[in-house]
Amino acid sequence: DPKLKVFTCNANPALAKEIVDHIGLPMGNAQVIHFSDGEVQIKLNESVRGADVFVIQSTSAPVNEHLMELLVMVDALKRASAKSINVVIPYYGYARQDRKARARDPITAKLVANLIETAGAHRVITMDLHATQIQGFFDIPVDHLLGVPILGKHFADKNLEDIVVVSPDHGGVTRARKLAERLEAPIAIIDKRRPEPNVAEVMNIVGNIEGRTAIIIDDIIDTAGTITLAAHALMEAGAKAVYACCTHPVLSGPAIERIENSSIKELIVTNSIPLGPEKQSEKIKSLSVAPIIGEAIIRVHEELSVSKLFD
Amino acid sequence: DPKLKVFTCNANPALAKEIVDHIGLPMGNAQVIHFSDGEVQIKLNESVRGADVFVIQSTSAPVNEHLMELLVMVDALKRASAKSINVVIPYYGYARQDRKARARDPITAKLVANLIETAGAHRVITMDLHATQIQGFFDIPVDHLLGVPILGKHFADKNLEDIVVVSPDHGGVTRARKLAERLEAPIAIIDKRRPEPNVAEVMNIVGNIEGRTAIIIDDIIDTAGTITLAAHALMEAGAKAVYACCTHPVLSGPAIERIENSSIKELIVTNSIPLGPEKQSEKIKSLSVAPIIGEAIIRVHEELSVSKLFD
Ligand SMILES: Nc1ncnc2c1ncn2[C@@H]1O[C@H](COP(=O)(O)O)[C@@H](O)[C@H]1O
Ligand SMILES: Nc1ncnc2c1ncn2[C@@H]1O[C@H](COP(=O)(O)O)[C@@H](O)[C@H]1O
Repeated sequence: DPKLKVFTCNANPALAKEIVDHIGLPMGNAQVIHFSDGEVQIKLNESVRGADVFVIQSTSAPVNEHLMELLVMVDALKRASAKSINVVIPYYGYARQDRKARARDPITAKLVANLIETAGAHRVITMDLHATQIQGFFDIPVDHLLGVPILGKHFADKNLEDIVVVSPDHGGVTRARKLAERLEAPIAIIDKRRPEPNVAEVMNIVGNIEGRTAIIIDDIIDTAGTITLAAHALMEAGAKAVYACCTHPVLSGPAIERIENSSIKELIVTNSIPLGPEKQSEKIKSLSVAPIIGEAIIRVHEELSVSKLFD
Repeated sequence: DPKLKVFTCNANPALAKEIVDHIGLPMGNAQVIHFSDGEVQIKLNESVRGADVFVIQSTSAPVNEHLMELLVMVDALKRASAKSINVVIPYYGYARQDRKARARDPITAKLVANLIETAGAHRVITMDLHATQIQGFFDIPVDHLLGVPILGKHFADKNLEDIVVVSPDHGGVTRARKLAERLEAPIAIIDKRRPEPNVAEVMNIVGNIEGRTAIIIDDIIDTAGTITLAAHALMEAGAKAVYACCTHPVLSGPAIERIENSSIKELIVTNSIPLGPEKQSEKIKSLSVAPIIGEAIIRVHEELSVSKLFD
C-alpha cells in the first residue's frame, strides 16, 4: 500500500494534529527550527522515500517566515525522494495582491505560486482563495475547499429566524448566495459608494434588512474596518441583530478592538489561521476545518494510489 | 543612453545610499513597506521601463523577510518592464546550507538561487560566497566580489610587523593565502581535531606563530565560537597579538559577548551586513564595500550597454 505521511511546519501545529487524528495517522517526525541567526533549519527524522507526503502550513503571519518554512520543507522532501509532495495551505497569504491594482504593483499571489512550484510541490490543497483566479496562477492541480459548509452548519444549528445573508461588497456575492442557499434565506449586498472624491464612503444596503437577523460573510477579516462599518449600517437600517463570519481570521492591527466595540453579536471563523493569545475575544468562535481537510487528504491519496495502478 | 537605476530594499539602506553616491545617481524612488498583517507591500514611484535596474539587498537577518522583500521587488520590476534586473546581494543568506551535510537535509542555498531566478532576476552580484560552488546554483551570470582587498588594505595601512595570516579551518586556506599575499606574510592553519568521539576538540596550529601578530580571516563570523577559540589557542601558542577579520558580520547569539571577552584585539568587518545597535563593540570596526559594489555596477551597466549595440 503506498505510504501516506503528513508533516507540519509552525503555522498550524494544532490543526495539523487534528488532521492526522482524523485520518488516523501519527504525525510525521520532523523539526522545523531556526539556526542562531534565524535561518530556517529542517530536520526530517524519518524516511519519506516513495511516500505521498502532505505538508500542512498556512502562510499566515508572520507570512514570510511561514512561507519560507514551507518552501524549505518542500525542498527537503524532494531531495529525500518523496513520491509526491502535496502542500496544504488552509490560508493562502498574499492572496489580495492578485492583480496590478495600481501601476507597477507586484502580483505577489502569482510570485508565491511560482515559488511553491519551483520548490517542488506537486499539488496544492487550499481554502477560500481571495480570488478563485489564483488557481490559474498554478500549473499544478489545486484542490479548492470551501468554508461555507462549516460556517453554514453552525448557523443552521442555531435555528435563527428571519435570516438575511449579507455580502459586504460586490466581490462576495457568490459566497453569500452559497450560505443563503444552505440557510434558505435571502441575500443583501452592501454597496459602498464614494459620492464625490475625498468624501467619506456611503454604505447603501441593497435588499431587505428591516427586522431581520443579518449574517455578514466574508473570506478574510483583516483590520475589520469593512465588517464593523457594515454591521453598524445594518443596525441603522433596522436589522434585529448582526452576526458575522469568515473563513480566514487575519485580524491584524485594530481588528479585535473594533469587533469588541461593534454591534456584531458573534463572529464565527475557522482555524485556517490559529487565534493566538492577542486575538482572543468573547465574541469570536473558531470552528475546525480539520475534518474537511482530512477528508480531502484521504481522497487525494486514494486518487494518487489508483493512478499508480496505471503507472 | 540606456538608463541605469538603483533601488534598495530594507536590509542595507545606508550602504545603498553610499553606492548611489559613489556612482553619482539619485536613489530609485520606491517604498518597501508592510500591510497591517505584515505582508510586504512595494510601491515603485518611478518608471523603470527599459532601464537597467540594480536592487541592493543582503539576505541578512531577518533573512526570510529580507529575501521576500527582494523577490517581491524583482516581481514588481519585471512587471513594470525593466530591461534588466540585477540583484546585488552583498551577503547571501542560507549559504551554509549548501549541501546535504546530514541525510534528508534541504539545500536551501540552491532553493534560494532558484527562487531569485523564478522571481525574474537576470544577474546576481554578490560577495564572498560561503562556498564558491553556489555560483553554479544559478543559471544566470553571477559576479563574485571579494572582501580581501578591502580588509587587506586596512591591515597594510596599519604597518603591523611580523604578521601571520591564520585560516580558522581548512576550508578557508585559499582566502587566507590571498590576504597573506597582499601583506607579504606567511600563513598558518588551525587544524581542529576530535581525538576521540565525545571528547572536546583540540586546536592544533599548523605553522609558525611564536612572537608574531596573527590575523585570523573568515568569510562569516556568526556566533564567534570558532574565532574566539582560535584566538585563545593562538595566544597560548605564543602569538604577540591576535586580530580578526571577516567579510560578513552575522554576529548572532553570544557573538558580541564572546568577542568582548576574547583575546581578539580588533575585529575588522564590512558593511555587507549593517551593525545594528545590538552589535556595537569597541573592538569591531566596519569598512565599506560601497566603492567596489559601485564600480561593479558601473562595469556591468557598461557591459549591458555595449551588448545593446548588437541587439
Ligand atoms: N495584506 C494586505 N492588506 C491590505 N491590503 C492588501 C493586502 N494585500 C493586498 N492589498 C490590497 O488590497 C487590494 C485588493 O483587495 P480586494 O479589492 O479586496 O481584492 C489591492 O489594492 C491590494 O493592494
Ligand atoms: N544559519 C546557520 N547557522 C549555523 N549553521 C548552519 C547554518 N546554515 C547551515 N548550517 C550548518 O553549517 C554546516 C555547514 O557549514 P560549513 O561546514 O562551514 O560549510 C552544515 O552542517 C549546516 O547544517
